Amino acid sequence: MTTTTNSDGTTTIDAPGDLPAIRMTREFAASPAQLFRAHTDADLFVRWMGGEGSTLQIDHWDARTGGSWRYVGEHGGEEYAFRGCFHTVREDRIVWTFTFEGIPDGVCLETFTFEDLGNGRTLLRSDSTYESFEARDAMLSSMESGVTAAYVQLDRLLAADQI
Amino acid sequence: MTTTTNSDGTTTIDAPGDLPAIRMTREFAASPAQLFRAHTDADLFVRWMGGEGSTLQIDHWDARTGGSWRYVGEHGGEEYAFRGCFHTVREDRIVWTFTFEGIPDGVCLETFTFEDLGNGRTLLRSDSTYESFEARDAMLSSMESGVTAAYVQLDRLLAADQI
Repeated sequence: MTTTTNSDGTTTIDAPGDLPAIRMTREFAASPAQLFRAHTDADLFVRWMGGEGSTLQIDHWDARTGGSWRYVGEHGGEEYAFRGCFHTVREDRIVWTFTFEGIPDGVCLETFTFEDLGNGRTLLRSDSTYESFEARDAMLSSMESGVTAAYVQLDRLLAADQI
Repeated sequence: MTTTTNSDGTTTIDAPGDLPAIRMTREFAASPAQLFRAHTDADLFVRWMGGEGSTLQIDHWDARTGGSWRYVGEHGGEEYAFRGCFHTVREDRIVWTFTFEGIPDGVCLETFTFEDLGNGRTLLRSDSTYESFEARDAMLSSMESGVTAAYVQLDRLLAADQI
């Protein structure tokens, strides 16, 4: 398990030994509805998911059960494209598939839930299941830095009442 | 590992100990293109997937990358609905998500590939990844009988030149 603490919250990243999965939790000063919007509204999503020093462009975004999505990130002059479909989009739960197009046959299934902790705080859980331990471990290092930076951006948008 | 032999082919079903997955292989007297059509053409799909003694009704079917699907099966007077999205639809590979609506938050990621063996035969591989070993094991017994019966129906359609 890796735990990263920053000024606004703690991102816990767990890679269990018995399942090819990555479990993340992160608390936010937000309501479940705000976190749902941050994950489904394309204009909001690009403003935090890129993280600092990256830009994100939505190519396609249809955030409803049965919809699909694709975005292209740019970091240090390199482009990285990602795509998938929205299996479930509910206020308390989003399930999507996720492929990095650099590994076109690799795919993971990712579930996000938003748990109201009271006092204006919500716990985001993200559970990703991979097809193999190798695929999971390959994702783990890049996910850690990328997601932690993205969540700091999301904290900033929330603090500025922009969600 | 479970191996079921029938008059037309052998269905091999493997539930590995180290991954929450089900791996199936089945040989058909068919081309890869025929197996692709059997899995993507709604009118063909309902004619074999139901298996004998079942009927299947397509509620929604959009077999392209980023599309989605839903069907309702009837067996012994009971209805069972299933839904998901098509993550990838390519001639050699289909990846979809799969939910039995009786367990609405359960979802698996399933990949089908069609490998040309020559002499008019093709190997179908189906790899399903579940979120837990419990979910995988719950699916295993019902999958075994259902899929084996469905593949016998598919053999019949192929033998009758209907695909």
